[in-house]
Amino acid sequence: MQIAVLGTGEVGRRLATKLVSLGHEVTLGSRTADNAEAVKWAGATGGAHGTFADAAASAELVVNATGGLVSLAVLEAAGAANLRGKVLIDVSNPLDFSGGMPPTVVTPDGGSLAEQLQKAFPEVRVVKTLNTMANAVMVEPGRVPGHHNVFLSGDDETAKAVVADLLGSFGWPADRIIDLGDLTSARGVELLLPLWLRLYGTLGTGDFNFSVVTAPPA
Amino acid sequence: MQIAVLGTGEVGRRLATKLVSLGHEVTLGSRTADNAEAVKWAGATGGAHGTFADAAASAELVVNATGGLVSLAVLEAAGAANLRGKVLIDVSNPLDFSGGMPPTVVTPDGGSLAEQLQKAFPEVRVVKTLNTMANAVMVEPGRVPGHHNVFLSGDDETAKAVVADLLGSFGWPADRIIDLGDLTSARGVELLLPLWLRLYGTLGTGDFNFSVVTAPPA
Repeated sequence: MQIAVLGTGEVGRRLATKLVSLGHEVTLGSRTADNAEAVKWAGATGGAHGTFADAAASAELVVNATGGLVSLAVLEAAGAANLRGKVLIDVSNPLDFSGGMPPTVVTPDGGSLAEQLQKAFPEVRVVKTLNTMANAVMVEPGRVPGHHNVFLSGDDETAKAVVADLLGSFGWPADRIIDLGDLTSARGVELLLPLWLRLYGTLGTGDFNFSVVTAPPA
Repeated sequence: MQIAVLGTGEVGRRLATKLVSLGHEVTLGSRTADNAEAVKWAGATGGAHGTFADAAASAELVVNATGGLVSLAVLEAAGAANLRGKVLIDVSNPLDFSGGMPPTVVTPDGGSLAEQLQKAFPEVRVVKTLNTMANAVMVEPGRVPGHHNVFLSGDDETAKAVVADLLGSFGWPADRIIDLGDLTSARGVELLLPLWLRLYGTLGTGDFNFSVVTAPPA
């Protein structure tokens, strides 16, 4: 699949590298066409690089791996026409570090960033996922042994099925993927970050994840 | 131990009943001395009932099981002098349902309700715990099989040790209690509620809990 990964930070590069390794044609998108990280990444992996708009234009599926506070501007730079009808996997977290640590979670209109992006780009099929764990765990769930989960939120069932397949190719068995329902459920997973960050500090590692443990049916 | 449980809702009654069954002398506190639920509960369990102030005055340890949006007013009614020096277990969640479902989490001054209570009553030893699960699971963790966790946040180490002991008597093994550190970590557990509520809807039961799954040390 032709995939655009928007954002050249650690999360974007990690996801882009995994997608290349799975045989996808990946373009790492950034604000400028000659972003140093993107050029270096493309040279090392055989992927492509370009502006947000370049990356989105050629893609069948787009991953938003930018900082949550700039994601709306990034999608505007990518361009509504280049995004139209496509699945957008939103892994970003709207964390505001301007007041120091710990950051606060920004909740646009009392909701989630994912909903804000969906509202701004109604013809994009937004699916929120993977934002509740370290990027290393996203693409290699086996780093954390045993049962643990990844969440899925979105209004478009077909888009969620496409994303669930992609998660499966990352190593997430179908029974570890919890479909939380429509995109309003992204509020819950975005608000999980303060606890994640605290656990990261307490445990001293990002190699952990949340598991939802249920009682067996009576 | 002499324990006051403030709040006659389902959470307060559940905790109070468990504490009575463990041999504690429990007073269920409410706004009025003759609250119907409290009278009924006391009759059924052999516990006592009274006003918030009555309950707090006689207690060595106080449990805040009131709705998060009224907790500050409840503690004011209980009275600073009656609370002074005591451990306050805060299990409340500051959820605002005024805008309908899903509720939003209120974050006083960008922080947690637990911090707000601590600031208003600096001589109380606030420990946040148990707010991240259904009340049935709080007092009977074995309802949910396998490994799952309860969190602990507070500034007073001795108070946290007292609470950890109490959790142990509820059935929480020490290795399932995650001490997140000081009371600012209550922000993370309070913000977990939107995800909890969504999972409650998705799973159709409150018999679930979060587990933090970690990789074994390298």
